[in-house]
Amino acid sequence: MRVLAFLDGTLGDPAQPYVRVDNTGVLRGDGIFETVLVVDGRPRELGPHLDRLARSAAMLDLPEPDLAAWEGAVQQVIDNWQGSSEIAVKLVYTRGSEGDPDAEPFCYALGMEIDEKVKRARSEGIAVALLERGFGPEIAERAPWLLLGAKTLSYAVNLAALREAARRGADDVVFTATDGSVLEGPTSTVVMVADRTLYTPPPTVGILPGTTQRAVFRAAEAAGWTVKVENIPASELLSADGLFLASSVRKVTRVHTVDGTRLADSTELHRELCDAYEAQYA
Amino acid sequence: MRVLAFLDGTLGDPAQPYVRVDNTGVLRGDGIFETVLVVDGRPRELGPHLDRLARSAAMLDLPEPDLAAWEGAVQQVIDNWQGSSEIAVKLVYTRGSEGDPDAEPFCYALGMEIDEKVKRARSEGIAVALLERGFGPEIAERAPWLLLGAKTLSYAVNLAALREAARRGADDVVFTATDGSVLEGPTSTVVMVADRTLYTPPPTVGILPGTTQRAVFRAAEAAGWTVKVENIPASELLSADGLFLASSVRKVTRVHTVDGTRLADSTELHRELCDAYEAQYA
Repeated sequence: MRVLAFLDGTLGDPAQPYVRVDNTGVLRGDGIFETVLVVDGRPRELGPHLDRLARSAAMLDLPEPDLAAWEGAVQQVIDNWQGSSEIAVKLVYTRGSEGDPDAEPFCYALGMEIDEKVKRARSEGIAVALLERGFGPEIAERAPWLLLGAKTLSYAVNLAALREAARRGADDVVFTATDGSVLEGPTSTVVMVADRTLYTPPPTVGILPGTTQRAVFRAAEAAGWTVKVENIPASELLSADGLFLASSVRKVTRVHTVDGTRLADSTELHRELCDAYEAQYA
Repeated sequence: MRVLAFLDGTLGDPAQPYVRVDNTGVLRGDGIFETVLVVDGRPRELGPHLDRLARSAAMLDLPEPDLAAWEGAVQQVIDNWQGSSEIAVKLVYTRGSEGDPDAEPFCYALGMEIDEKVKRARSEGIAVALLERGFGPEIAERAPWLLLGAKTLSYAVNLAALREAARRGADDVVFTATDGSVLEGPTSTVVMVADRTLYTPPPTVGILPGTTQRAVFRAAEAAGWTVKVENIPASELLSADGLFLASSVRKVTRVHTVDGTRLADSTELHRELCDAYEAQYA
């Protein structure tokens, strides 16, 4: 089941082609995206997703997105969805045709089923591999042209890292910086728990500010946890009480193994965090 | 003027859409490309371009490309071209539809006119800005998932660097590594000349092996120049006898200014190199 909606409110047939071969989204990965989770017809964190879309657009010098139109396209997907109770809605914003200075951005929202493997991982947990990202934690602010922290369509490295993880027998990846500090997953935010405190690295190290991580922190804080946004040395992951990857579609997924080493059992912690995260949408 | 050819030998209308909205080329910049220069109906360095396409495919775990089919598509573009004497033929190879394990790669060759600005720069020269790439020169071999040296469709950073150059009043970019050594341009290879010797950095530092650079070196060596593939400290650029960016469409373009500082006049050097480069295709 897939539903395709455009920003003018019209629907498309997702099995038909709509993108031109000279679109810079294809030729150059030149554009941005968001993935919004919809549960039982209600989008989660839509405001923060749209805010981040606008921030990514600014980082890529793309025209400011019409957030009301994007919101309408998401609603169109929801209104026409006849699949499972959960939808992953991708918001895709490409610059347009290459070599045409008057090119209009080409934009759409695409509702897709969530992969069964992703759903299974929510309950069963995952193994991750630590992989170097090659950057120092200070480069993002000094070199904005590296687009660290923008959610661009140029995700070839993120996918290559996931294939490397599979080769190593892992399900996902945690990227590390040159100083050995934790960055993020290729499509997720890292959340570590130690002594009833939640930690996540600051966006200033060159990672995407996580919409789901923020929702988890908000819920956990309301439930009495301490939350801290600060650098995490990768060496601390193995001794943590819990390690989680947060993203729209995976929600809060428990990491049970890092580079082949089994972590302490965080099943109970995971249940607590998931309950807090879910309760805010009840 | 644009000509679109598919690998089965058929032609398409480049103004019509052919790419699905769930193609990973669009959604993830997940694919590879080459740009081949055709002059007076003859493709330049087609063999090396196809070899590099195959190498990029291997780095991204894409199915091995059918090089004869790609060569046929390039010929189709040439046979149906009615524009200028020069064509930039883009070979675009995307993985296919996301979430479909049986997805077929979606591939095409697109012939396009060469930008007037690029043609003008061949004779007038360009100003470049040095921009940090954020990587050390040793990371490429240790972390192949970073895809340094693969020509992927994920070029958002390369385009952002060009926009940053424009903001600084420059036409193009030379990326530098964390140790201050020269890497490459966002879409070109750096060639420096000092004492009748041509220098270019080795691909092991995490850059694309240049097809045009190699052709220039081959021609220059035959004409009696010394050529060296070795690390270049960025500090040496300002005192060089000549600095050039090489790529298919820009051929050998002379750099006259680096970060606002005018270089020594290399007009004569440039003429010599261009003559040697062009002579091999005469």
